[in-house]
Amino acid sequence: MRTLWWEDGKVILINQRKLPEKLEYVECLDLQQVAQAIKTLEIRGAPAIGVAAAMALALIAHYSKARSRDELLRELEQGAETMRQTRPTAWNLFWAIDRVMSDARAFKGNLKRLKEAIVAHAQTMAEEDIAINRQLGIHGAALIDERDVVGTICNAGWLATAGEYGTALGVVKAAHEQGKNVQVIALETRPVLQGARLTTWELRQDGIPVRVIADSALGYCLSRGMVNKMVVGADRVAVEDGCYVFNKIGTYMAAIVARRHNVPFYVAAPLSTFDFAHRLNEVVIEERSPSEVTSLAGKQLAPEGVEAFNPAFDITPPLLVDAFITEKGVFYQPFRENVLKLTECI
Amino acid sequence: MRTLWWEDGKVILINQRKLPEKLEYVECLDLQQVAQAIKTLEIRGAPAIGVAAAMALALIAHYSKARSRDELLRELEQGAETMRQTRPTAWNLFWAIDRVMSDARAFKGNLKRLKEAIVAHAQTMAEEDIAINRQLGIHGAALIDERDVVGTICNAGWLATAGEYGTALGVVKAAHEQGKNVQVIALETRPVLQGARLTTWELRQDGIPVRVIADSALGYCLSRGMVNKMVVGADRVAVEDGCYVFNKIGTYMAAIVARRHNVPFYVAAPLSTFDFAHRLNEVVIEERSPSEVTSLAGKQLAPEGVEAFNPAFDITPPLLVDAFITEKGVFYQPFRENVLKLTECI
Repeated sequence: MRTLWWEDGKVILINQRKLPEKLEYVECLDLQQVAQAIKTLEIRGAPAIGVAAAMALALIAHYSKARSRDELLRELEQGAETMRQTRPTAWNLFWAIDRVMSDARAFKGNLKRLKEAIVAHAQTMAEEDIAINRQLGIHGAALIDERDVVGTICNAGWLATAGEYGTALGVVKAAHEQGKNVQVIALETRPVLQGARLTTWELRQDGIPVRVIADSALGYCLSRGMVNKMVVGADRVAVEDGCYVFNKIGTYMAAIVARRHNVPFYVAAPLSTFDFAHRLNEVVIEERSPSEVTSLAGKQLAPEGVEAFNPAFDITPPLLVDAFITEKGVFYQPFRENVLKLTECI
Repeated sequence: MRTLWWEDGKVILINQRKLPEKLEYVECLDLQQVAQAIKTLEIRGAPAIGVAAAMALALIAHYSKARSRDELLRELEQGAETMRQTRPTAWNLFWAIDRVMSDARAFKGNLKRLKEAIVAHAQTMAEEDIAINRQLGIHGAALIDERDVVGTICNAGWLATAGEYGTALGVVKAAHEQGKNVQVIALETRPVLQGARLTTWELRQDGIPVRVIADSALGYCLSRGMVNKMVVGADRVAVEDGCYVFNKIGTYMAAIVARRHNVPFYVAAPLSTFDFAHRLNEVVIEERSPSEVTSLAGKQLAPEGVEAFNPAFDITPPLLVDAFITEKGVFYQPFRENVLKLTECI
């Protein structure tokens, strides 16, 4: 299963707003359409929007009428800036854009070859993302035991990546493939309900038992011993301050209650999610429309005109994380030192 | 504003399922209709369903064709049993039923007078509930300072009581009436959204600024210093084990994160919510239909057939509570000893 792919000068992606009701696809012929799909959450998940941004730049290269390498690079830089403005928090987006741009600038070859290289690069990134998450899943599966019930928030499955595995759910799937009897409790994940809509949909296809709960019910489930591991994804890990985790709103509360009940809390993310460049306070937490909270599927929930505060992410401090699961292995405290060691080996 | 009242042999109550869209009333002519209204959450809130149960028994008394006191008492006992089966967790329900029944049994007078006494008793309980919550609000307001932002879950306002004040929101309203500049952050309170639908509706009518957040956003709000007091209601306080608080699912997580951020966590409840008779493990936590989680307003959210776990309440241990606010005053640790002292003075 693929979340998005390149096909004859088009970027095709699953419209995740329509799931689980309908499996519908969006065809993007230009960068603006991809940018719009990211903003509206038709495609979401940190690794997936990274790949989508790379493919958006590939659309520019593919259709460009530029008459020189420099002209194309200027068009790409403009497109890159548009993509950087789509969503501020997930690091993979910036990582992917920067990778495409620096490779394009460094490319030795004529205009035609450069265009082809950028399109090929975007496609390679999608394949790499899948391979990376497969590795991540295998490393993480070692932390999962027979009969574990794994709690997770949002959707960190294949829909959040280029396809096939996913991050947090990739860990669960790898354990399942190894024959371990594992179940999932999915936090529904208000306001956009990625847990109720997407995680359940994915896991049922894989034949992994899943139950959904209100986000606020996790504490009670933990107190009853119904969840014995937590595995979540990440939108950005700010390494410099010790590996603070930016992830879906509610992750922080989940980590706090997991710790209270001595349930291990694992963060599964490819190294492209790790931000080595910014301090904690430089990262912008996206605030989305209050209407995501006050209405649902076009139905008004709160009284008309009521204000809402709708941060899309929160910050989980490293002290609440037991380990990070990456494609290069699992690492423990001290996180900053250990992730630097891992990345040196790349 | 009244949540429910007796009028010419009818119990009239606001249909809270229709709020905030429409202010509609349900007229109940027999006990079964009241029982149904409680089960379907047309009326909810521990103090309100206590008064509703008393009024349901009053309907039996009013329309009874019993030819003796004993026959009427048997009819009442049957009705009481039906009401006890409506919802298992809120203590006020059992407290109110027991009070009506023991007063009926002890009543000295003929059949006609007994019927009248039961109807009068139910009406008195509604008035008492309002007076009690007014007192509770005044005591609690002393804990609220100028420019406080109070976080609350579910609806513990006048809609959760017989009317006028409410419990947790009664504290906020009393502070507001004293001229204190106070704001509220309302947790939307999945799955039934009493916070988004009811708390916002009430507070706007009182001119108290309110913002709604996803339940999972409380941790982030606390980490940003956006909430500096928590005040919640209760469905039952199990006194014997040291005052464990049964309240809306999510209260436990809210208390945990409040403590982490050193934000005081107050429970506002009339003494009729305090259960002196049962141990913690004897209390049943109601599990409601999974469809409350998997669908909303008739719209399916999760894939058809996905399982959900939907506990309506959770248990907050006394160590996470800073104080209880009652109509007889605020009390601190040791809770059991102090609430026993308060109730001896009744």
